[in-house]
Amino acid sequence: MNHRHATASARSVDDYRDTVAALLAPLADRPAESVAVPDALGRVLATEVRSPIDLPVFRNSAMDGYAVRAAEVAVTPVTLPVAGVVAAGRPGTTPLPAGSAMKVMTGAPIPPGADCVVPVEDVRADQDRIVVERGRAEGEFVREAGTDVRAGALVARAGTVLAPRHIAALAAVGLATVPVLRRLRAVCLTTGDELRPAGAELAPGQIYNSNGIALAAALRADGVEVVEVAHSSDDADEFTLVLRAAVAAADLVFTSGGVSKGDFEVVKEVLQPLGGVFGAVAVQPGGPQGYTVVDGVPVLSFPGNPVSTTVSYVVFAREVVRALGGLPAPDTAEVILRTPVRSPAGRRQYLRGLRTDDGVEVISGPGSHLIAGMAWADVLVDVPAEVTALPAGATVRILTL
Amino acid sequence: MNHRHATASARSVDDYRDTVAALLAPLADRPAESVAVPDALGRVLATEVRSPIDLPVFRNSAMDGYAVRAAEVAVTPVTLPVAGVVAAGRPGTTPLPAGSAMKVMTGAPIPPGADCVVPVEDVRADQDRIVVERGRAEGEFVREAGTDVRAGALVARAGTVLAPRHIAALAAVGLATVPVLRRLRAVCLTTGDELRPAGAELAPGQIYNSNGIALAAALRADGVEVVEVAHSSDDADEFTLVLRAAVAAADLVFTSGGVSKGDFEVVKEVLQPLGGVFGAVAVQPGGPQGYTVVDGVPVLSFPGNPVSTTVSYVVFAREVVRALGGLPAPDTAEVILRTPVRSPAGRRQYLRGLRTDDGVEVISGPGSHLIAGMAWADVLVDVPAEVTALPAGATVRILTL
Repeated sequence: MNHRHATASARSVDDYRDTVAALLAPLADRPAESVAVPDALGRVLATEVRSPIDLPVFRNSAMDGYAVRAAEVAVTPVTLPVAGVVAAGRPGTTPLPAGSAMKVMTGAPIPPGADCVVPVEDVRADQDRIVVERGRAEGEFVREAGTDVRAGALVARAGTVLAPRHIAALAAVGLATVPVLRRLRAVCLTTGDELRPAGAELAPGQIYNSNGIALAAALRADGVEVVEVAHSSDDADEFTLVLRAAVAAADLVFTSGGVSKGDFEVVKEVLQPLGGVFGAVAVQPGGPQGYTVVDGVPVLSFPGNPVSTTVSYVVFAREVVRALGGLPAPDTAEVILRTPVRSPAGRRQYLRGLRTDDGVEVISGPGSHLIAGMAWADVLVDVPAEVTALPAGATVRILTL
Repeated sequence: MNHRHATASARSVDDYRDTVAALLAPLADRPAESVAVPDALGRVLATEVRSPIDLPVFRNSAMDGYAVRAAEVAVTPVTLPVAGVVAAGRPGTTPLPAGSAMKVMTGAPIPPGADCVVPVEDVRADQDRIVVERGRAEGEFVREAGTDVRAGALVARAGTVLAPRHIAALAAVGLATVPVLRRLRAVCLTTGDELRPAGAELAPGQIYNSNGIALAAALRADGVEVVEVAHSSDDADEFTLVLRAAVAAADLVFTSGGVSKGDFEVVKEVLQPLGGVFGAVAVQPGGPQGYTVVDGVPVLSFPGNPVSTTVSYVVFAREVVRALGGLPAPDTAEVILRTPVRSPAGRRQYLRGLRTDDGVEVISGPGSHLIAGMAWADVLVDVPAEVTALPAGATVRILTL
């Protein structure tokens, strides 16, 4: 194994993650935005929401039946004339005459004077009179105004990730829009002369560009709006142009490739003179990392090996990106390792793993190019930097993909 | 409590759920569709996907370094002339001359004749020669073609819900599109003269229309494409027109309201003559239910109380809707009830509950109108039809919302 990256100068994973978190922290200050309630599913409330109205808005019937005075149906059977009908949607302001009933539909206003509803099943009815066969207590089948929620009462807390049940409540209290956290806007910028778009014919030495698509999918799954997936060759002028456009369009920019020790490291070449910090992190995959602030926009530069790009995002950026979007941290757990593993000294390793009923199996090799193999993994297995071997049965920390 | 719905004629929850499942079963036969890989996040593969290419496509370098013959660097230090440079993206077809090295970038083709790569860190280089300070074994830092995935090998199984890691693999093997299950297309059709859109001024007797928005959110969360949220008054001609448009646009239609025992049950009035089956299910909330097939399109009719509409969907339709979309069944569990409950005899009751560390608390009353209160619930507590009371400490089944 090559241990040269694991020098004293390489930063630790935790240290670099903190650096990335600090770099992105100013993005928390972006303004909220207003979205229509039907479009707010999965969005995160920027403020608490209180009800503008009482719900129920008015005293109404819980049943199809007859609004009466409980005292007048205390002894049954009793015959009452039907003084009218209140359909749902009608004002229902006509008072109930003494000694009579008014037909009411579910949800219709209870006429003034009535204090309970006898369900239609408990009544024999003819044209204009009913025989009540079973009386009801005061308040039965009457929904009083404000018993679901009072005007001014809390409907949902700030920070709520809006599920269908929240959408239902917001709609029921008549809100057309709600204030939500604006999604982070990101551009993913891949580099490399060798990369070709999907479906293209590959010339010798070329490969398909998966990093932009993969990173965009990961970001979208974490609530980020990916405004563009861009690509540049290894030409510095081209990269500079594409980078400038990205920075103008986004809250943050991710680049992949061009950060290592080769002869054509365009990302490092362009960004270092702009103040970019590039160096080694004691991690595998994903050792070479860089970050820059360009015109106030954080630019995170990941290495270009497909697995390295994806793992770099998961290890260094995912948690803070989710937190900035108001989403909970990804799941981690301590589980039993079911396959022995070896790991290079001095580098924290993230191995591809598959959860099983009784722990986790490491699948696929550690190679940074094994991106198809990574599709079968549902977790990363976190092997600490100082550990060089773990037996089956050891306890390991896993990070859900 | 009113027990009249719990007559011998009321169907059981399980029986009605089976009926709904059978009604929707033909929707499984809809054709797959092709979507662009970058847009396929969260979609479900309609068929297995195999790789059209070997990955790596060609033998390439895992490091920035020098391609050599392992036998020629077995004894170090050794000085070799540098015969050229292979950048990523170049054909790399020039063979390595005997007794020399070629500089290679990560991902660049290994020149024919070379069998390992010495990383740049293990070499002292000047203009046109290198001193190798540490040799490498045959194959070291060489990624052989096809070692990630072979042409023809499985990349993802049919039925895979595509996560970012799958998108990455599909992009890496160069696929531009993938075959996925077409989403179910639904229309949500609310009825009722009393309903007003969000933001409108309410006249006496009117309420806000939340059912369409709530049902649409629930369906979208379950992977359904909601093509329209429509509304009709209680006028039969208007409802017929809106229904016909819904049936023409959708794979399935959900209606809310107009299925009970009142005087203005427009859904039942219009759909019964078309073969609709309407009747009581022994459930609370949500007793009155109906279903119809109109021009081959299943129409599920839920009652109009807001909680009844939502719970009807969760109890009777959600699992089959998700299954038809290729998504797993909603989570259920057996947990300890932390609050005593009462329940009407003869009706299976779904109470709103909140998961706690040690079980579930029932929150909010059983009223079908308590939709704002439902926002605080994250589960439904399933109380069997024959049970009339449960003490704290009882084991109950919960259904995740």
